[in-house]
Amino acid sequence: MTVFNIVFLGAGNVATHLAQALSRQGHRILQVYSRTQASAAALADLVQASYTTDIKCLQPDADIYICALKDAVLAEVLAQVPDFGTALWLHTSGSMPLSVFEPYTHRCGVFYPLQTFSRQRAISFERIPFCLEANRKEDLVLMKTLASQLSEDVREMSSTQRQNLHVAAVFACNFTNSLYAMAQEILAYDHIDKDILQALIEETAAKLRGNDAKDVQTGPAVRMDRNVIDKHIAWLQAHGQADKARLYEEMSRIIYERSQPS
Amino acid sequence: MTVFNIVFLGAGNVATHLAQALSRQGHRILQVYSRTQASAAALADLVQASYTTDIKCLQPDADIYICALKDAVLAEVLAQVPDFGTALWLHTSGSMPLSVFEPYTHRCGVFYPLQTFSRQRAISFERIPFCLEANRKEDLVLMKTLASQLSEDVREMSSTQRQNLHVAAVFACNFTNSLYAMAQEILAYDHIDKDILQALIEETAAKLRGNDAKDVQTGPAVRMDRNVIDKHIAWLQAHGQADKARLYEEMSRIIYERSQPS
Repeated sequence: MTVFNIVFLGAGNVATHLAQALSRQGHRILQVYSRTQASAAALADLVQASYTTDIKCLQPDADIYICALKDAVLAEVLAQVPDFGTALWLHTSGSMPLSVFEPYTHRCGVFYPLQTFSRQRAISFERIPFCLEANRKEDLVLMKTLASQLSEDVREMSSTQRQNLHVAAVFACNFTNSLYAMAQEILAYDHIDKDILQALIEETAAKLRGNDAKDVQTGPAVRMDRNVIDKHIAWLQAHGQADKARLYEEMSRIIYERSQPS
Repeated sequence: MTVFNIVFLGAGNVATHLAQALSRQGHRILQVYSRTQASAAALADLVQASYTTDIKCLQPDADIYICALKDAVLAEVLAQVPDFGTALWLHTSGSMPLSVFEPYTHRCGVFYPLQTFSRQRAISFERIPFCLEANRKEDLVLMKTLASQLSEDVREMSSTQRQNLHVAAVFACNFTNSLYAMAQEILAYDHIDKDILQALIEETAAKLRGNDAKDVQTGPAVRMDRNVIDKHIAWLQAHGQADKARLYEEMSRIIYERSQPS
């Protein structure tokens, strides 16, 4: 196995999980760059790397530079990199195109792991889809090798497809989690233990395997049980949850419309 | 073990799964009542029961009558039951109070399994919370015994708490599934395989174990990455998905507001 020398730009959740996973595979994390010293130091410590908060002090001799940065920061940081050299430059963003590297280097690619990373939670990479795109065929081969060391699910994907996928992921993950948060707030009114929802939540996720979500939709909205819907909205309004009441009405409408034969 | 003779009113998803689970535990399903002959016959066949579509032909000699009916239908059906006798009458609804039985009988209870049931999907009852409420202590004991045969998670819950829980469950399950449906629609635009989201969806659900959802929120909205948000909304609008664009804006606002220290 080829061991790569890797520099990470960014020390957030994606960088932290990815750097550790690559390190576990035997790759060498040379350096971590982050503007926030505490983050840079923490990740560097985890993967036995050096760190810097000064982009001008980026180590020049790595094989791969992985930018795991907020989209807005990515362009800004790239513009300050002193020298791209002949290394391979990657970013991990769902929504930034490959072309963000265009002004700087031709050895570039996108290495996008489709997953939700929270710092405190260990994660297994095996089932995470890695969506890859590269400027050069040879680099794509290299990236596929690298991704295959981490996951069984490695896919090629264009910038356009990846952006589409990222929108879908925001609905399926981020918005979903926000609904969980609202559900927990509702339970808190009556001091009901939030764990009561866990089996329901996991079954709702698991039953999607191989199914169209609209075919397994349940609940008052899909059967337009106006009795229940009105009671629920009244409950939310009576408890000062006007935004949840509005959302309830809107989601019920969306569910009902989708359940009608087109 | 006491074997109970049970009659089911209703032959939908909840009735189908619950009747089969009770039958597997050795209880005898005597009869299935449903206004829809095909549904009544199908469930009766699964649990070796007789069936009727005429409420006046309800068998009078069961120990327990379980009403697994739409809320709007429940009150209507109860009003037509010829004789409540001395049996125990239960309903399985999250949002109907125990008092719906009041005009008819004092031996009554609520036997509410908190789960999403789809007809075609086998389900294990072990982890499903059963939320119980009864009019008489002795009946509550009986119901606890029955529920414990099906699940490790049996709880007492008042009508008020159960209605609150049901609202929360609609957010955590039904609305969540609707987000999955929207995500799948978005993927379809670029012919991306919908299975690509499965690991993400299951991890989003699993990482809630023991956590407050707001503490594990990820994505562009929580970091107010306006760059990404605007790009996503523009994508949705450009693809004629005005309702999704509106929902995206609203959910992002909700997520961001919740992420701010109060």
